[in-house]
Amino acid sequence: MADMNTLLHALAGDAEISLLLSDEAQIAAMLAVERALAEASADCGWIGDDAAAAVAAAVEEFAPDWDGLAAGMAQDGVVVPALVRQLRARVVEPHRVALHKGATSQDIIDTALMLQLVGVFDVFEERLSGLLGKLDGLAETAGGRELMAHTRMQMALPTSWGAKLASWREPLQRHLRALGAMRRTLLVVQLGGPVGDRGSFEGRGDAIAAALARRLDLGLAPPWQATRDPIVGLGNLLALISGSMGKIGADIALLAQNEVAAVRLEGGGGSSAMAHKSNPVNAEVLVALARANAGLAGTLQQAMVHEYERSGAAWTLEWLTLPQMVVNTGASLRLGLALLDQLELL
Amino acid sequence: MADMNTLLHALAGDAEISLLLSDEAQIAAMLAVERALAEASADCGWIGDDAAAAVAAAVEEFAPDWDGLAAGMAQDGVVVPALVRQLRARVVEPHRVALHKGATSQDIIDTALMLQLVGVFDVFEERLSGLLGKLDGLAETAGGRELMAHTRMQMALPTSWGAKLASWREPLQRHLRALGAMRRTLLVVQLGGPVGDRGSFEGRGDAIAAALARRLDLGLAPPWQATRDPIVGLGNLLALISGSMGKIGADIALLAQNEVAAVRLEGGGGSSAMAHKSNPVNAEVLVALARANAGLAGTLQQAMVHEYERSGAAWTLEWLTLPQMVVNTGASLRLGLALLDQLELL
Amino acid sequence: MADMNTLLHALAGDAEISLLLSDEAQIAAMLAVERALAEASADCGWIGDDAAAAVAAAVEEFAPDWDGLAAGMAQDGVVVPALVRQLRARVVEPHRVALHKGATSQDIIDTALMLQLVGVFDVFEERLSGLLGKLDGLAETAGGRELMAHTRMQMALPTSWGAKLASWREPLQRHLRALGAMRRTLLVVQLGGPVGDRGSFEGRGDAIAAALARRLDLGLAPPWQATRDPIVGLGNLLALISGSMGKIGADIALLAQNEVAAVRLEGGGGSSAMAHKSNPVNAEVLVALARANAGLAGTLQQAMVHEYERSGAAWTLEWLTLPQMVVNTGASLRLGLALLDQLELL
Amino acid sequence: MADMNTLLHALAGDAEISLLLSDEAQIAAMLAVERALAEASADCGWIGDDAAAAVAAAVEEFAPDWDGLAAGMAQDGVVVPALVRQLRARVVEPHRVALHKGATSQDIIDTALMLQLVGVFDVFEERLSGLLGKLDGLAETAGGRELMAHTRMQMALPTSWGAKLASWREPLQRHLRALGAMRRTLLVVQLGGPVGDRGSFEGRGDAIAAALARRLDLGLAPPWQATRDPIVGLGNLLALISGSMGKIGADIALLAQNEVAAVRLEGGGGSSAMAHKSNPVNAEVLVALARANAGLAGTLQQAMVHEYERSGAAWTLEWLTLPQMVVNTGASLRLGLALLDQLELL
Repeated sequence: MADMNTLLHALAGDAEISLLLSDEAQIAAMLAVERALAEASADCGWIGDDAAAAVAAAVEEFAPDWDGLAAGMAQDGVVVPALVRQLRARVVEPHRVALHKGATSQDIIDTALMLQLVGVFDVFEERLSGLLGKLDGLAETAGGRELMAHTRMQMALPTSWGAKLASWREPLQRHLRALGAMRRTLLVVQLGGPVGDRGSFEGRGDAIAAALARRLDLGLAPPWQATRDPIVGLGNLLALISGSMGKIGADIALLAQNEVAAVRLEGGGGSSAMAHKSNPVNAEVLVALARANAGLAGTLQQAMVHEYERSGAAWTLEWLTLPQMVVNTGASLRLGLALLDQLELL
Repeated sequence: MADMNTLLHALAGDAEISLLLSDEAQIAAMLAVERALAEASADCGWIGDDAAAAVAAAVEEFAPDWDGLAAGMAQDGVVVPALVRQLRARVVEPHRVALHKGATSQDIIDTALMLQLVGVFDVFEERLSGLLGKLDGLAETAGGRELMAHTRMQMALPTSWGAKLASWREPLQRHLRALGAMRRTLLVVQLGGPVGDRGSFEGRGDAIAAALARRLDLGLAPPWQATRDPIVGLGNLLALISGSMGKIGADIALLAQNEVAAVRLEGGGGSSAMAHKSNPVNAEVLVALARANAGLAGTLQQAMVHEYERSGAAWTLEWLTLPQMVVNTGASLRLGLALLDQLELL
Repeated sequence: MADMNTLLHALAGDAEISLLLSDEAQIAAMLAVERALAEASADCGWIGDDAAAAVAAAVEEFAPDWDGLAAGMAQDGVVVPALVRQLRARVVEPHRVALHKGATSQDIIDTALMLQLVGVFDVFEERLSGLLGKLDGLAETAGGRELMAHTRMQMALPTSWGAKLASWREPLQRHLRALGAMRRTLLVVQLGGPVGDRGSFEGRGDAIAAALARRLDLGLAPPWQATRDPIVGLGNLLALISGSMGKIGADIALLAQNEVAAVRLEGGGGSSAMAHKSNPVNAEVLVALARANAGLAGTLQQAMVHEYERSGAAWTLEWLTLPQMVVNTGASLRLGLALLDQLELL
Repeated sequence: MADMNTLLHALAGDAEISLLLSDEAQIAAMLAVERALAEASADCGWIGDDAAAAVAAAVEEFAPDWDGLAAGMAQDGVVVPALVRQLRARVVEPHRVALHKGATSQDIIDTALMLQLVGVFDVFEERLSGLLGKLDGLAETAGGRELMAHTRMQMALPTSWGAKLASWREPLQRHLRALGAMRRTLLVVQLGGPVGDRGSFEGRGDAIAAALARRLDLGLAPPWQATRDPIVGLGNLLALISGSMGKIGADIALLAQNEVAAVRLEGGGGSSAMAHKSNPVNAEVLVALARANAGLAGTLQQAMVHEYERSGAAWTLEWLTLPQMVVNTGASLRLGLALLDQLELL
C-alpha cells in the first residue's frame, strides 16, 4: 500500500522523523528491548546465558509477518502479544519461556519508544543548534540594523534587528537545554510487569531494570505504567518548540507584507492565478504547525487521567497524539531552517 | 515508500476512509473539478465547447508526475499550481488558456474536498444505519431485560436494557439526520477566483458556479474562501459522532468489568502476560478516538480566525486536522459495529 | 465577597450575559422548574391540585439560605438536594412529599439551564441582528469602494468592500438561523428521574414531561441525561459565532495596520508609554475570545464521553466550560458591535 | 456586584487562590512594581531619591478609583494607563515624570503577575507536601495490604496498596520539584520598555532590571515580552498537577464502585432522589478539573504564536486561560486533600 498522503507530508511533514517513528523502526526497537531484557535477566541470574543467547539469536534472524502483526494489533490493542508469538517460534527450545519473561506488553512498547526518541532527540538538537547558528549569523551581519517595532499590530518605535533576533533565539536556546535535561528524566526504561509493580520478576525486578537500562543506554526509573506525566511533559515541550517556531513564522509573515516590507523571502510560493505573488508559505506552515501542536498538547494532557494500573483508552490516546506531535515538531524545525535561508533583511 | 504506520491504522484507523482521502483520490477529484469547470464555462459561453473538450481529453489521459506534485506542494503550499502546469502541458493548443480559467487554487481544492466528502458521507450514513439496526435488534431481543443503572459511578436503581439502548441510539439517529442536512449545506462548490469575489469570471461567475454545481452534483453557494464555518461545522459533527461512540465504548468497558459483569465481550483482546485477560479493546479505542477527535475539533475551531481573503496558516491548519478527524470518525463507526457484534448482554 | 475579576470582565466579559447565568438566575430558574413540575404533576393527576398550590406558594415566598446552598453544592456535587431541603421546609404539610416528586437533581438543573438559555438566545439574536444591520449599513454606503485584497498575507488584486462585508455577513446570518433552529432542538425539558428512564413517575412520565414543557414553554424530548450531544452542539455553535467575530477582528486589526491603512478605528486604545498609539483593542480581544472559545469547545467535546446513566465528572466538566463559552460569545458580539461603530473605511 | 457564581466555586473553585488573583491583589502587586521600579531607578541614578520617595509616598496612600480602572481597561486593553494616570495625580510635583519612567504597561503587568505567583507557589507547595504526607501515612499503615490490580478495565493480578500509593506519589513529588525549579526560571522581572529592548532606559536598563529584581526578590531575565514559553510552561505544569490529581480521582471513583469496593469514602455526596447513594463527588470533580485544565493548557499553547513585539490578542488569551488554570489547580489540590481524608482502604 502506498503512503496515502505524500503531498501533505511534502509540505508539512518530516520524512526523517517519520522514518524514526515507522512501524519498522518501532518493531526493531521492540526486538532490541526483548533481547536486552533477556540479556539483563541473564546478567542477574534470572535466566541462563544460553537462554539469553537463544533469544538474541532469534531476534537477529527475525523477519516479522507484518500481516500477522497488524491482525494482532487490531485484536489485542497492542502489537506485543503477536510479536512475541512470532518471535518465540524462532527461539530454540527449551529457551522459549525465557523470552519476555516477567514482562508485559507495556514494558516493551514504552521502552522501545524511548529508544526511538533517542534518535529523535538527536535530530531535534541538531536542528535547534542549526537554527541558533543561523540566527547568530544574522545577528552578526545585521544586528545593528534598525527595525520598526510593532505592538498590538501598530507601529511603535524603532528597535534593532539584534533585539528581534535575540527574542527569536532565547526560547530556542531554552528548548535545547530542556531537551538535554529530558534525556535524563524522560528517556528511561519501563519495567513493571503485568501490574506495574515488578512482582513478576520475583524479587529481581530492580536489578533487571538496572541492567536493562545499562544495556540500552537509557535512564533508570521506577515503573511508570500509569504515571504518564513524563510522556505528557514531552508533548508539552514539543508544543513549546513548535510554538516558538510559529512565533517566528508569524513575525516573518507580518514583516514580509508588501506594505511593511521589512524582509523579503527568496523563492516564495507561487499562485495558480496571480503571477506576481510570492507567498510566505514556510512562515504560514510554521503557524499552522504551532497551532496543530498546541491543540494536540491539550489532547495529550487528557491522557493524564489514566484508569487503574493500565488504561487502554488513555494509552491509545497517547499513540493518537504524541507521534503526530513529534513529526509536527520536526517539520517545524525543518521549515524554520529553510525559512531562515530564504530570509533577507531589508 | 511504504506506509509507515500500518500497525496503528490496523487498530484505530479506517482503510476505506483513508482511501477516499488519499492523494490519488484528491488528485482525481481535482481533475474532475478542472474538467467540470471548463465544461461549465463552456455551458455559459465563456470558453468554447472545443476548449472544454480539449480540457476533458487532457484530464482523461492525464497521469500525474507525483514527484513534481510533491515538489510543487512544498514550494507553493498548495498542489494546484504544479498540477495545472502538468495538466496544461497535455491540453492541445490553442486551448491551454481555457484550463483553470478564472479560477484559483482554492476553488479547485475546496470543491475537490466536497466531492471526496460525498463518498465519505455515503460510508458514514451506511455505518450509522448499520449501528441503528444492530441496536434495534438488541432492543428487540433484550430490551425488557433488567439492568442495574449507575449514576456518579455508584449503583443507582434498576432500569431496563431498553432504556440503555435507546440512550445509545438517539444521538446516532440525530447524527444521521445531521449528515443528511449537511449534504445540502456543506457539500457545495467553491468558486471565487483569486480574491474570492468571482471578479475574475468577468460577470459570468454566478452562472458558471451554478453550472459547475449541476455538473458535479454539488450544492450552490456564494464563495466561502475565508468563511470556514461550514468546514468547522463538519468537524464539530464528526466529533459528536465519535463522541457518541465513545460514550458507548465507555459504558461497555464499565459494564464488562469482571465485578460488574453486565455484559460479556466475545473475542476480547489478549495479553502478553496474563492468559486469563479478555480486554475490551474496541471499547477502549472508541474512548480514545472520541477524545482525540474532541481535541482536534477544538483545534479546527482555531482555523475560524482566518486572515484576509485567504489565510495560508488557517487553511493549512484545516488540512492538518480535518482529514484525521474524518478517519477517526470512520474508525469509530467501524469499531462500534465490531463491538456490538461482540456484545453479549448478561 | 466582591466579584474578584471585574477588570478583566470590563475588557472581555459581558455583564448582561453574566447576569443571566448568575447563581440568582439559576436558583430562580430551578424554583420555576420545581413549581412547574408540581403543577404538571397535578395536571396529570399524579399529585393533587392543593399539593401543587402548596409547592407554588413555597416557591413564591422562598428566600434561599445561600451559605447552605454553597455547602450543599460542595457536599453533594449538585445544589439540588440542599435546595430541595430548604424549599421543602416551606411547603405546608401534608404536601412536602409532592415537591420534587419523581425527579432527580439533573432534571431540575438541566431544565433550569434551558430556561436560562432562552434569555441568552434572545440577547444573542438581538446582537446578531444588530451586527447584520450595521454591516448592511456599511455595504450601502461603501460597498462599491475598492479594497486591496490580500491572500496568504500578500497583496493580491483589488476587490470591493462589498465583497469583504458580505464575507463577514454570511456566517453571522447562518449563526442567527442556527440559533433559531436550536430553540426547537436544544431548548427542551429534561425529565428522567433518578436513572433517566422516567420509571419513577410510575407510567405518567411522558405526560408529565409534556405538561412540564407546555408550562415552561420549552420543547419536549426524551430524557437526555447521558446523551449530551445537544449541549455540546450548543458549545460548537458558540465557538462558531465567536470564531466568525474573531475573523472580523483579525481582518480589522490587519486592515488598520499603519502601513496598510485601509480602515481607521476611532477611539483606539492608548498606551502607557507611546502617546501616538491607537490600538485596535476590540479587534484583538475578538481574536482572543475566538481562540479561547475554540479551545473550550474542544474541552466541552470531551464531556461526550459520559459514563453510565449519569457522570459526575463529565457533567461537572460541562459546568466548567459551557457558561464561560456563553459569556465569551456574548462578549464577542458586544465587542463586535462596538468595533463596527469605531470602524471608518478609508 | 455580588460574585455571581459562588455555588460552582464552592464545588470546584478555590477561595484562597482566587484571592491571590483578585483585582485587589493584582493592583496591589502593580503598585509594588511601580514603587520598586522608581526605587530601582534611583538606585541606578536614573531618577533622584526624592523622586523615588515621592512615588513611594503616592503608592502608600493610593486608593484606586475602581470604576475608572475598569473603564481604562475596556478602553486600552490593559489597566496600566488608567492606573498610572490615577497614581500620577497623587505624586507631588516635580516628580510625576519619574513614575513609570521608561516602562511600558507590560513591564508592570507581567512583573506583578510574578509577584502574585509567588504566593500561589507557596500555597501549591504546601498542599503538595500535605498530599505527600497523607500518602506516606497511608503507605505506612496499609502499604502491605493486597489490592487487586486492573489493567484495561479488567481484573489483572493482585498487587499491593504500597505500589498503588507509590504510583500516586511519584508524580506529585516530581511536580513539587518542578515548582521549585520554576521559582528560579519563571518568577522573574519583566522590564523591556515600549518595544521590549530596554532602549527607553537609555543605557541603564540592565542595571535597573537587576535592581528591580533585587527589590522584588524575583529572578532576573532579559525582556520576555513576546517570548512567552515560560508562561506557557507554567500552564503545562499546572495541567500536569491537576492531571495527576485527576488520575487519583479516577482511580478512587473506580475503586469505590459498589461492585469493586476496594475503598470506601466517608461523607460521600447525597442524591435528591436516592437516599442510599454515597457519591464520590470529590473524585469526580478531580477528573473534571483535570480535563478542564488539559484543554486550557492546549489553548494557552495557542498564545505562543505572538505577533510582533507585543500581541494584544495573544496576551489577552493568556489572561483568559492562565488564571482559570491556576484556580483549577488549586482546587485540585484542595479537593485531593479532602478526598484522601475521606478515603478508607478496605
